[in-house]
Amino acid sequence: MELVSDNRSFGGRQKVFKHPSNTCGCEMTFAAYLPPQAERGPVPVLWYLSGLTCTHENAMTKGGFQEHASEHGLAVIFPDTSPRGAGVKDDEAYDLGQGAGFYLNATRNPWKTHYRMYDYIVSELRSIVMDNLPVQDKHGITGHSMGGHGAITIAVRNATLFDSLSAFAPIANPTKSDWGRKQLSAYLGDDESSWAEHDATLLLEEHGWKGDLLVDQGSGDQFLDLLKPEALADVMARRRQPGQVRMQEGYDHSYFFVNSFARDHVRWHAARLN
Amino acid sequence: MELVSDNRSFGGRQKVFKHPSNTCGCEMTFAAYLPPQAERGPVPVLWYLSGLTCTHENAMTKGGFQEHASEHGLAVIFPDTSPRGAGVKDDEAYDLGQGAGFYLNATRNPWKTHYRMYDYIVSELRSIVMDNLPVQDKHGITGHSMGGHGAITIAVRNATLFDSLSAFAPIANPTKSDWGRKQLSAYLGDDESSWAEHDATLLLEEHGWKGDLLVDQGSGDQFLDLLKPEALADVMARRRQPGQVRMQEGYDHSYFFVNSFARDHVRWHAARLN
Repeated sequence: MELVSDNRSFGGRQKVFKHPSNTCGCEMTFAAYLPPQAERGPVPVLWYLSGLTCTHENAMTKGGFQEHASEHGLAVIFPDTSPRGAGVKDDEAYDLGQGAGFYLNATRNPWKTHYRMYDYIVSELRSIVMDNLPVQDKHGITGHSMGGHGAITIAVRNATLFDSLSAFAPIANPTKSDWGRKQLSAYLGDDESSWAEHDATLLLEEHGWKGDLLVDQGSGDQFLDLLKPEALADVMARRRQPGQVRMQEGYDHSYFFVNSFARDHVRWHAARLN
Repeated sequence: MELVSDNRSFGGRQKVFKHPSNTCGCEMTFAAYLPPQAERGPVPVLWYLSGLTCTHENAMTKGGFQEHASEHGLAVIFPDTSPRGAGVKDDEAYDLGQGAGFYLNATRNPWKTHYRMYDYIVSELRSIVMDNLPVQDKHGITGHSMGGHGAITIAVRNATLFDSLSAFAPIANPTKSDWGRKQLSAYLGDDESSWAEHDATLLLEEHGWKGDLLVDQGSGDQFLDLLKPEALADVMARRRQPGQVRMQEGYDHSYFFVNSFARDHVRWHAARLN
């Protein structure tokens, strides 16, 4: 693991690392915010999964999580959204290939060689973080858009590994959306039965989430038809899932939206991790 | 004035506008954050001047001012740092020409046609903001690096127009620095007597500032030799200038530094403007 940059931020340190990834078969980059409390001992971790087209950098620079993580004593990990590099299959579309890993393990050629973001997050990067950074084995997970999809699907499928869960404008029902069907078909093939474990709504319907779940969604989001928050709200209500879907008036899909509610989400996780 | 974008942010609106500038002879872009309080009536304005290579966008997306401006009911204006466009003289260096207007009116060819950022900020953009946005005639000013230089020099020379003043890592003594001598020579010519009114240290020595002055500087700033905070600290102490220069341990010159102290600066201005 090589240190790429290190900036003081809110009394802590905003670091960026790169490392060879066995899982993805390429070099991967991630960012880690370490709050001042981490100088005195290990702290809980909040994982933030980013959306389509993003790298580790977008939320690190625009999300505003450091201020609140510093206050509450959480580390924040910002992974990349896909494998990267000249040798990694890509696509001209912004929503397939590099920048669009969808937090799954591809099973089809030509994607299956590198596109293993599910294992990367759940296993490899988790081990790297726990072995190299001053963190406790207490993990919260959140994310935006494709990353909100990743957060919910990964947490529900690995409920013993995560202690708190939230999402910003998640792709909530990808098996029914053009943000989902195209990618699930490309990465997993046309047998839709293999898609269900990558759909937050279907997973919550089957398994629920062990804790309570916070979801924020802007009512002015330009992608509401693709995100399908109504599917998530419906299944949460039908299943009596503890938690809340908050429809935030007038907010769109941008980082101005994420930034506006970063404080609430960090507090949500801190209350459940500390 | 044309609306370029409009995003909901912390209950208010983050807008970007472009407009033809008579002063700069080109189209100019600026960002304006309007807090929720602006829907009920005019609010005071905080001007944020950016540093070398920046546009209106850097501080708007990375500074984190919106959260605190929303809490305290301030509008925040983020101007660009120079004239722009294909017809505007530029230079290959990052610290001269486009992105490096230094908040002065150039008097030499080929710069003097467009490089009039002093008049643009003090007069033209001020009028545009006051005529078109729900703001009071109460103005604070701050900025980072070249923008900190701009904030102090503009406020001290126009003490009747500004009611509060602060700076992040300002270029404090440009007549003695390679961030200054090169640009002042290019834009104003070799007669150094014309440079003094663009040097924060020399201006404070001669005029002082009517109020108190907050300056934050990172002790780990990679540009300390060019910024010369010691010159500013020295003249403030000798002149018994109310205010403070805070040396913040380990912070560098990045927006992680600005973001870390944005709250303090917004509070500083709000306490003096409200």
